[in-house]
Amino acid sequence: MTAKKQDFPVDQVRHWLEPGPVVLVSSRSGDQTDIMAMGWHTVMEFSPSLVGCVIARANHSFGLIRRSGECVINLPTAALVDSVARIGNSSGAAIDKFAAFGLTPEPAQRVGAPLIRECHASFECRLFDDALVERYGFFVFEVVQAHVARTPRRPQTLHYSGDGAFMLSGKTIRRKALFTKVS
Amino acid sequence: MTAKKQDFPVDQVRHWLEPGPVVLVSSRSGDQTDIMAMGWHTVMEFSPSLVGCVIARANHSFGLIRRSGECVINLPTAALVDSVARIGNSSGAAIDKFAAFGLTPEPAQRVGAPLIRECHASFECRLFDDALVERYGFFVFEVVQAHVARTPRRPQTLHYSGDGAFMLSGKTIRRKALFTKVS
Repeated sequence: MTAKKQDFPVDQVRHWLEPGPVVLVSSRSGDQTDIMAMGWHTVMEFSPSLVGCVIARANHSFGLIRRSGECVINLPTAALVDSVARIGNSSGAAIDKFAAFGLTPEPAQRVGAPLIRECHASFECRLFDDALVERYGFFVFEVVQAHVARTPRRPQTLHYSGDGAFMLSGKTIRRKALFTKVS
Repeated sequence: MTAKKQDFPVDQVRHWLEPGPVVLVSSRSGDQTDIMAMGWHTVMEFSPSLVGCVIARANHSFGLIRRSGECVINLPTAALVDSVARIGNSSGAAIDKFAAFGLTPEPAQRVGAPLIRECHASFECRLFDDALVERYGFFVFEVVQAHVARTPRRPQTLHYSGDGAFMLSGKTIRRKALFTKVS
């Protein structure tokens, strides 16, 4: 399962993130890499392309991201649900999550953190504002490069609702006729 | 269409918000009320129950929420999609959105902003942290009271992906056996 990805406009990443999917955050600091599952994130601005997210200090990834000021936000599809659950229930302090879960790190273009090849999309992020990191673990990242697989156009995504349950994305309905603005 | 709601534990609102649904934010300041559609929000903490969200200054609701320090985050189901689209494409400076879209304001318990009766759930919110309001319109709210309809247990929710398109929530899959932690 390898999604061949293409460049995607960074000011349109809301298409993938605003619906609220659980994402896999990959990071690197020195020779250490890690992956964490994350459901607490929000788009904050189109341009610059800003995404805010909560990364708890207890996560092994916290240190790698704090030190490097970078990460990659990867979008897994429903086929990866078991890996997502296992990634969220293990620690990078104990295992190499790429090796443990059969995921493939690929070099990013503009950050040191690796992309996850098996994900549908990967968004390279640099720290933009750390004002709320101490209080809430809330990082504001700028998406500086985006990669999205061409197919499928509407992959099934995973939306975590707690207690081990994931809601799958369903069909899309269009109401563009009711929209007077572009967004 | 009137959802009869019951009290719900505030430290579990992530069940409804973490999957990323578009929500309707109701507010009041003095004798003015307003409703806005919002897709840019994230859970930030279980207890206190914190939700962060972006409310652009251009929204009529911004002033009401800034002045009152309160709002209600309401969860619409798929049946309300046309109202959600219209609410997102009109201004409370020009119309009374409750009247214009046939929605019913109900008194909240702990805030002055009204609940929206027709929504599946309503979360009463008080401003918790405004450190990032000037920079990004990012408000951190504490959910101080929560109301959720008893049925349906898994309502179909709307997840906005831009360009007038809403993804509907689909079926739920469970992987609790892979979870070693409670969350």
